[in-house]
Amino acid sequence: MAREDPIRDLIDMLKRLPGVGEKSAQRFAYFIIAMAARDAREMAQAILDVKDTIRVCSQCFNFAKTDPCPICSDPRRDRSVVCVLEDPRDLAALEKSGSFKGIYHILGGLISPLSGVGPDDLKIDELKERITAGGVREIIIATNPTKEGELTAHYIQERLSGMEVRVTRIAQGVPAGGDIEYFDSQTLTAALKNRQEL
Amino acid sequence: MAREDPIRDLIDMLKRLPGVGEKSAQRFAYFIIAMAARDAREMAQAILDVKDTIRVCSQCFNFAKTDPCPICSDPRRDRSVVCVLEDPRDLAALEKSGSFKGIYHILGGLISPLSGVGPDDLKIDELKERITAGGVREIIIATNPTKEGELTAHYIQERLSGMEVRVTRIAQGVPAGGDIEYFDSQTLTAALKNRQEL
Repeated sequence: MAREDPIRDLIDMLKRLPGVGEKSAQRFAYFIIAMAARDAREMAQAILDVKDTIRVCSQCFNFAKTDPCPICSDPRRDRSVVCVLEDPRDLAALEKSGSFKGIYHILGGLISPLSGVGPDDLKIDELKERITAGGVREIIIATNPTKEGELTAHYIQERLSGMEVRVTRIAQGVPAGGDIEYFDSQTLTAALKNRQEL
Repeated sequence: MAREDPIRDLIDMLKRLPGVGEKSAQRFAYFIIAMAARDAREMAQAILDVKDTIRVCSQCFNFAKTDPCPICSDPRRDRSVVCVLEDPRDLAALEKSGSFKGIYHILGGLISPLSGVGPDDLKIDELKERITAGGVREIIIATNPTKEGELTAHYIQERLSGMEVRVTRIAQGVPAGGDIEYFDSQTLTAALKNRQEL
């Protein structure tokens, strides 16, 4: 395909990435132009490979090379505890912590009236189906401690009421390494309320 | 090529882009995974096309599809005035303003002792050669009004001293649409010093 203006085309393409405006896209494009040809080919190939090989797990909606994904098909994971997350990046963070041995359910977003994201845009029916299928004892809702994350958590809790399942929410408190002086009132209030015996 | 972890590979590749850390690269990678396959192929192709078609102009060191670039080969441009810039993005901004009818010279950076960029890393000898070749009446140094930009401007001025050419620097002052209250002392000092008759 012959392009009138290949630099402009690349900038426009890079601007589609989340949070990337004209200036960042320009910076990326000129960086790519200045890159070794081999590295640029590798970058293009990495994009193609990820599209060719990565699929959505039909159970938890995580991205993986296999369906079901390695977590859903791992017999050592506790299938009775399902951690509900906004997106696969949250899953990556939790897996890195190594502290969760259950399985996951990716919502694919958070309810956000301002952004036009409603409950039907999220995998909430699919979560109910997993519970109905049996074997799930607890749902841990680990959406962000933000307005949208809380709204989504409460919505899910309501939708699951009456089902034979325990619905919990991750604890709010002060994060490790933080400075008390700089936390907002809501965080400090939660940290005091959820205080633990030493 | 079979990849162990195509998502990880793509994240590592995207982290090479300037100013992109692990978190942004993750965000980009998951966005690309969720993109339509056709769009992702287009993005990969745009990277390949830019590498295939864009070269460096041997006169001004701008990026273009042709060498010399369209500006250097445009007979309507005034070849007696050369505007010296840090990089092609600055050129794009100046061209957009439509206020400059001369030609350009891209340095490829700014002198920065802290980043290990010295004068020999920039196209300063090439600038001297262009002046020596004749026909250049004025050099406008339009590097950023930052420490590194000023250092580079003064260095070039010294290097060109004794040559038959006028060396000027773009004006410092308050930018359009700004708020006096928020400008730094240096900007306000320059704006007062460079004041113009109304």
